[in-house]
Amino acid sequence: MKHLLLTAVAAASLVLPALAQEPAPIPSPGEIVASAPASDWIAIAPSDLLVMDLAPDAKGKPRRVVIQLMPAPFSQGWIGNIRKLAAAHWWDGTSVNRVQDNYVAQWGDATEKKALPRGLATVAESEYQTVGDGSIKTVWTSNGKQPARTMMVVVPTPKTPPSKKVADPYASSYAFVAGMPLAVLSKVERGQAKTSAEGERLPIWDYAVIDKAWPVHCYGMVGVGRNLSPDTGSGAELYTVIGHAPRHLDRNIAVVGRVIGGIEHLSSLPRGTGALGFYEDPAERVAIASIRLATELPAAQQPRFEYLSTESETFARYADARQNRRDPFFILPAGGADICNIPVPVRPVVAK
Amino acid sequence: MKHLLLTAVAAASLVLPALAQEPAPIPSPGEIVASAPASDWIAIAPSDLLVMDLAPDAKGKPRRVVIQLMPAPFSQGWIGNIRKLAAAHWWDGTSVNRVQDNYVAQWGDATEKKALPRGLATVAESEYQTVGDGSIKTVWTSNGKQPARTMMVVVPTPKTPPSKKVADPYASSYAFVAGMPLAVLSKVERGQAKTSAEGERLPIWDYAVIDKAWPVHCYGMVGVGRNLSPDTGSGAELYTVIGHAPRHLDRNIAVVGRVIGGIEHLSSLPRGTGALGFYEDPAERVAIASIRLATELPAAQQPRFEYLSTESETFARYADARQNRRDPFFILPAGGADICNIPVPVRPVVAK
Repeated sequence: MKHLLLTAVAAASLVLPALAQEPAPIPSPGEIVASAPASDWIAIAPSDLLVMDLAPDAKGKPRRVVIQLMPAPFSQGWIGNIRKLAAAHWWDGTSVNRVQDNYVAQWGDATEKKALPRGLATVAESEYQTVGDGSIKTVWTSNGKQPARTMMVVVPTPKTPPSKKVADPYASSYAFVAGMPLAVLSKVERGQAKTSAEGERLPIWDYAVIDKAWPVHCYGMVGVGRNLSPDTGSGAELYTVIGHAPRHLDRNIAVVGRVIGGIEHLSSLPRGTGALGFYEDPAERVAIASIRLATELPAAQQPRFEYLSTESETFARYADARQNRRDPFFILPAGGADICNIPVPVRPVVAK
Repeated sequence: MKHLLLTAVAAASLVLPALAQEPAPIPSPGEIVASAPASDWIAIAPSDLLVMDLAPDAKGKPRRVVIQLMPAPFSQGWIGNIRKLAAAHWWDGTSVNRVQDNYVAQWGDATEKKALPRGLATVAESEYQTVGDGSIKTVWTSNGKQPARTMMVVVPTPKTPPSKKVADPYASSYAFVAGMPLAVLSKVERGQAKTSAEGERLPIWDYAVIDKAWPVHCYGMVGVGRNLSPDTGSGAELYTVIGHAPRHLDRNIAVVGRVIGGIEHLSSLPRGTGALGFYEDPAERVAIASIRLATELPAAQQPRFEYLSTESETFARYADARQNRRDPFFILPAGGADICNIPVPVRPVVAK
């Protein structure tokens, strides 16, 4: 291909043979992920997967969307409701009825008349964020050469403190816990000076004790529609982000998971022409055939996915590369990244 | 409507009559923009508009995309080329040939064989950013109550210094100049103590002198595809962002404008299934009927748009509200926003 165009180089460098004389090119984030050992990948339990089958498209092709639910301790009240709604097959026959460009695709009961199953919890607004007990810690270097604006925080492995710092305009910093992106408010604790076994003086690390943490509205994250406060939504009306991260919704709406498969079936839908992107003509709505917890499907039909451990050294290298692109296409690394520009790698498990 | 759902309240509050006893609700960003005086809106010259007509859709509906070109001094070398390409009708018969989810839709000559018009400039990489001459200044309060993480910088009017500060993970800060979002590297100059005519001591303002500035890859911004450095692209291969802002491309690729009309005709296209979202089957490509500078169209057919002056007091209020949502739907203002979450309001001019 003569004309590689935007970032085509990144893919090409995976297949072009390197000349022996040339230094190995610096790997791209995708190449770092591709080289991860199998042990860095963590299987997502089928009990944490929601499988949404839309009606087939105009050409008769199936449209399956797979959602990973947030792990504890985040948003668990709504997730309990979502499990009940799925078990009751409540969404079957409902629809995707709102698609607003650069914002959200939303689904649920457009008639607003369908009775909810019994026993759904009313979740408190306090559950939009999680108050830390000091058990979650992040670490970063206090003597790096980067200016304070590039503060990067990841949940650490002791061997791989991140070398970067990145500020979050919506929080003190950010973190990745159990494969999910979180904004955090943290308190800094001063690290201790240490000496290595060889007598070498080690860098001093400061520790950030997470005070509060909450899941964030990145592309593909799934949230719970609601009425005015103090309503917090039941979980019956859901949406996913199909544009730039609307982070102002963080801590104002529950985030309950993320789309990990088939988001194109939502993001490429025609935009609604009504207010807020609602479809004006009911015929425009996209029918939902069914939404099931994967565990309700026959074993052979259960989708299988895994994510790159956000506690792994590979993830730390990947996050660093997302902040500082040095692969051949780039001429100037940014020196930082916002949390939504470090998407956690997720991949389907291919049967052997 | 019983079930208002996510942000439907913002629209509803525009039409519901307020009870006399109730305090007026705090306006949403959209309401602030709707209340702007006519003098705050600036017409975009037709000579700065690029009109792309795609082939009609499957139902025969026209698909027009309108792009506003970047104003000087940004990216002008590529924009000169784009004007020549449009004048030569070079894009007629080319196609949208790449649509990658959460990234870009790209158009140009998929055959890579079409000869370019003569006289296109080869633009230097140094043109990805603009070095300031000290003439562009921003101002912010040095004694606000907000912590440093919420630094907001807008190009000021003397009467409306922004009350907020927002950090940018990719720069020192950000600014809006002539209606366009810019990342900036700036040096701070200490302000002077002043006293008002009434003898009242005024707050001290620090000044930030912009050292370098560059247009950023927000949703809808248009950039120039290129090969490996030192190639910088001619402007013949263009793309627009249809997902979360890929800010790592800033200063690595030229940003030449933004889509201000019809982005849904690009963002809702089927995603390509080839590497990087290229359409594998040429039949999937979306034909471009024509791309013209608006000035080449008959006057009656020229699209007319205007943007909210980013130097206006209304914009300062709007930007503040985007950072601190206090309208009825929200329970917790974020206290900050990233630049791409403060989209500059643009509207079509409706003929009277």
